[in-house]
This record gives sequence, structure tokens and C-alpha cells, in this order.
Amino acid sequence: MTTINDIAKMANVSRTTVSRALNNNGYVSEDVRKRIMKIVEETGYMPSVSAQSLRTKRSGVIGIILPKISTETSSRVVKGINEVVSKEGFQILLTDTELNPKKEVEYIRLLQSRQVDGIILLATNVNKELLNVINDVKVPFISLGQELPNVTSVVYDDYHAACDMTNLFIQRGHEKIAFIGVGEEDPAVGHTRKQAYLDTLQKNGLTVKDEWIHEGGDFSIESGYESMKQILKKSQGNLPTATFAVTDRMAVGAMEYLKEQGYNIPGDMAISGIGAAVMSAYITPSLTTIDYNNKEAGRITARLMLDKLNNKNVSEKSTLSYRLISRDSV
Amino acid sequence: MTTINDIAKMANVSRTTVSRALNNNGYVSEDVRKRIMKIVEETGYMPSVSAQSLRTKRSGVIGIILPKISTETSSRVVKGINEVVSKEGFQILLTDTELNPKKEVEYIRLLQSRQVDGIILLATNVNKELLNVINDVKVPFISLGQELPNVTSVVYDDYHAACDMTNLFIQRGHEKIAFIGVGEEDPAVGHTRKQAYLDTLQKNGLTVKDEWIHEGGDFSIESGYESMKQILKKSQGNLPTATFAVTDRMAVGAMEYLKEQGYNIPGDMAISGIGAAVMSAYITPSLTTIDYNNKEAGRITARLMLDKLNNKNVSEKSTLSYRLISRDSV
Repeated sequence: MTTINDIAKMANVSRTTVSRALNNNGYVSEDVRKRIMKIVEETGYMPSVSAQSLRTKRSGVIGIILPKISTETSSRVVKGINEVVSKEGFQILLTDTELNPKKEVEYIRLLQSRQVDGIILLATNVNKELLNVINDVKVPFISLGQELPNVTSVVYDDYHAACDMTNLFIQRGHEKIAFIGVGEEDPAVGHTRKQAYLDTLQKNGLTVKDEWIHEGGDFSIESGYESMKQILKKSQGNLPTATFAVTDRMAVGAMEYLKEQGYNIPGDMAISGIGAAVMSAYITPSLTTIDYNNKEAGRITARLMLDKLNNKNVSEKSTLSYRLISRDSV
Repeated sequence: MTTINDIAKMANVSRTTVSRALNNNGYVSEDVRKRIMKIVEETGYMPSVSAQSLRTKRSGVIGIILPKISTETSSRVVKGINEVVSKEGFQILLTDTELNPKKEVEYIRLLQSRQVDGIILLATNVNKELLNVINDVKVPFISLGQELPNVTSVVYDDYHAACDMTNLFIQRGHEKIAFIGVGEEDPAVGHTRKQAYLDTLQKNGLTVKDEWIHEGGDFSIESGYESMKQILKKSQGNLPTATFAVTDRMAVGAMEYLKEQGYNIPGDMAISGIGAAVMSAYITPSLTTIDYNNKEAGRITARLMLDKLNNKNVSEKSTLSYRLISRDSV
């Protein structure tokens, strides 16, 4: 079997040069790279990723598991992570679960088998199998956006953000506040934001009507549209005057339904979201929302990852700050 | 050094079972998986990805290089690809170049070093180094969205789509049509769409004024906003009555500037984009655009990739169809 030493000898370069060429790690002239690659091809030599990692202890790659690549949250987080890790010479491999919980588990295994140095997970749900698999992971692991037991977690302050948003409606005189949420298998978005809404209403002595609360099937615009439709249908005669949707896309969908039905926003119904989607600034009326500063969240997570890679101690839980953006929809 | 046979012996299972557990490829009970993983951890055994690939000839992974994960184009394409390849047992690894041409080259090397079975590139530029690196790729390779010489390419019909859009303005009586584009180092979006616009105006005997054409710095909303500002500034006294932006986001930015300045859309200025971004349906007025059916493009590309993996002959160039969506902005 051809070894890296054979390749080096045949190309008349050092073993380090061959390694550089194969890993794209350090300078090799295009001529030499071509010569090496030609020999690699002719001999059918395949570099052993595992052997490399054992030698260098680093593969130079961080794996990120995203719930959905299309969301702005995902791309901002990746941007922030990349900004930090690229300076240290790391590259990034991404996987997209398309909101399928089973894929979170599969992709943790896939990234490990491709010998990444560390894994960052943006989970949308928490279940026993996921926790078991994370527990078996042999490289530094960080959860971003969900607090997971015994896992380094970087979390948004969902509870206080959702309290602030509910309070904003109350300060503006609203007493009948509806809520568009998602399933509670997503602890951060489905459970915590709803709990904050319920607690804030109760603290202010306001009634919570079941018909004012609706759970969308996913985070989509369509799901927000459908939820608003259901809420209006069920609360005929006692309509809410405000609706808090847990994501901007759901809020946009809700607005779309209200507009179609001839309701004035915010006159007949005030609306807010969470997430500061670009779109939220461009729709009419512009949407009141919460900015989680996802890029900074990515940077913070990346710095924690580098610390872990350097065997430094890191705190198990970091809670991020947020900013309420008050616009025309409330 | 520990081998897979040692692990199998210690775990009292077959070598196939160990391989399944490590690759998450086929059923292994949770108990057995744990036992194997424990031994793997204790012995420090690292499965050699290259050895596996040599045995199975397949790593079961397709790599995709995206220009920007946040765009809807990217996520729809990935969805389409995944729909097809997942049925054949393939997983997907993604990389995000953040529109940096150098990263396209780096990521082709990275994906190869992680032994993917095939690579799909969504390029935003074409340069000599990129073509050289692609030429050295030893696994099936497909370019989606850009036609590359000697590379299997799946392309959108940018030329005819942009002709149709320009013709729509002309049919509606517009004679002074502005254009918001991007740099020509992006052949599909920067060069072809612009050429189609110029050819269509010329064919109809319409004047092309330099001041009606502006190249944005990137594909962003901000870039469209700035471009519209420049066009209006430079064409005082001879304002265009319509503007064709090469992407929906740029069109949205242009609309934003026009609204700020008190122009009526489409009364004072008609606007169109390309891409059928979700947002295009929700802004006011809704945006006339071209739908490239990116998901279907992903499916077609994936089927070509599977054909290539099965050593079937595929045509070097496939051109996709499109659909003009006429809405309120024109």
C-alpha cells in the first residue's frame, strides 16, 4: 500500500509538503501541488484522515448542525462562528436537519465520523436519544439556543425577552393578548416563551383564554397565517386586541391573514414577533420584534469552542442579552 | 495499533456490527452500540475513513458548496438534493463560502479530504484557479447555476428569463428601463442577465443610458437600496419609469428607497426582481419576479449525481425552465 512517504519520494518533496498539499494547510506552490496530486492519482493513494488527526491532534474543522439553513438565525450564527474560528485556521462543515429531530442524531454521528474537532448544535428539540448521543461524543460539544443537561450551553434569554414583549402590549393598554406558539418539544421556543407570556399575564391579573392560544405546526409564515385564522375563528365575540407570535415569520403570516380579512394593524390588532428577521423591517406595518444578536451569539459560542479545544475550563451555561425593537405593528 | 477486528473481539460482536455502529449505517441495538463505543473510547481507536471508503467504495456523503446559506435559493436547492439522495442512503455535508471566491477553492479541497463521494458547487464566480481545482477533483462533480467548461453543469435559463422580464416592461409601455446588476465575475447573474436586458432593449429600438445601469456591490437589500439611489441621482431630468433588478432582495432594497423618497410603485416606477423570494409575495406592492424552481433544480442535479456515481453517462449541460410571476410592482 502506498504511504505518504512513497508519495513524497516520488514527487521529490518532503513529507510535510505532501501533507500540506493534501490538507491545503500551509503554502505549496501550484506546480508542486499539481505534481503531488498527479502522483496521488496515479498511485490511487488516499490520505488517511484518522492518521493525520492522530499526528496533528487536529483536523482543523468545526462541525455545525443547523435546524434549517434558510433561516436568518442560522446564517448569522454561522457568520459569527466563522469570523472567530477562521482566524485560528479552522474551517466549518455544516449539516441541515430540515427540522427533523432524527437527523440531529444522525448528523452528530456523521460529523464525528468525518473527524471534526468540535461540534456545535442548534437544536430545535430535546429528547432522550439526542442526549444519549451527545453524551457519547468524544470531541468538544456546545449547544446553542437550547439548554441541555451536562452540556456546555449558550442560550438566548427567551424567558425575559418574552416577558418584555408581553409587558409592552400591556403598557400600550392591551388586556386581551393572544399567543401563537410552537410545540413544547422545543423547550426554548415552544415552552419558555409561552411560560413567560402566561406568567406575565397572570402577574398583571389578566385573563388567559384558551381560544387565544394557538400552536403552529412549524415556524413558517403559513403556520402563522393558519394560527391567526384559528384564533379569530375560535374567539368570535371576544376577539383579542393583540397577538404575540414566537417568531417573526409566524407574525408575518398572521399579519397576512389579518390584512386579507380587512383588519387594521395595529388599530384592530397589534402584532409582535421574535428574531429580527430582515423581512420584519420591510413589511407594512414594520414589525415589533426582539433582536437576539445571533451573530454575537455565534462569536461567543466559537470562543467557548476554542477554549474547550485548548482544554480551558468554560462555564456550563452562558445566557445572551437581547434588544426589543419597537416598530409600527404594536 | 488497535484495529476494527480488535474492537469486534473485545465487544464480542462481528466486525460488521462494529462498522455499522461506527458509521451509523444499518441497525445496531442501543446496548451494543454503547458497548462498542465504550471500547472505542477506552482503546483510543479511530476508524480510518479512508480504509472504510476503500472497502465500500462509498462514504455515503455528498458535499455541497453554497455561496451563502441564508439565501432561499440555497435552502431550496439543498432540500431538492436531499429529497433525492436521502432515498439512496446518502447524507449531505454543506459548506458556506459567504460569497468569498477563495473559499470555493478551499472547500472543494476540504470536502475531498473528508472523502465525500461527490461534490455539487453553487458558484458565484468563475476564475482560473477554481477551474484548475475542479479539474483535479477525483470524485463526480456538478456545477449548479453556472456553466463551467468541461464540467457537468445544470444551469438556469438566465438569458431568456431576463429577456422575458425586460419584454414585460416594454409590453406595459415602458421605454426608459433601468437595470440594477452585479459584477460580471458572476457569469450567470452579472453577465448573462445584463446581456439579455441590453439585447432586448436594442431589439426594440430603445435607448440604453449609462446612468440607468448600476452595479450593486453584492446581492443584498442594502445594495439594491444604494443602487436605486445612485440611478435616481444620476438621471435627474430623465428618470427611468421602470427598474429591473437581478435579484429579489436588490429589488426590495430599491423599493425601500423609492418609498422613502415618496415615489409610487408602480405608478412612478415599476420594479421587478428574479428569484421568487418568499418576501417578494409579502411586501407592498407585491413584487413581479421569476421563479427558477430551485427545489426542482436540486432534484435534477441530485439525479445527475447519482447517475455519475453509478458510472452512467450524463449530458454535460442541462438547462432548467422558469416561470414569470406577474404581481403588483409592474
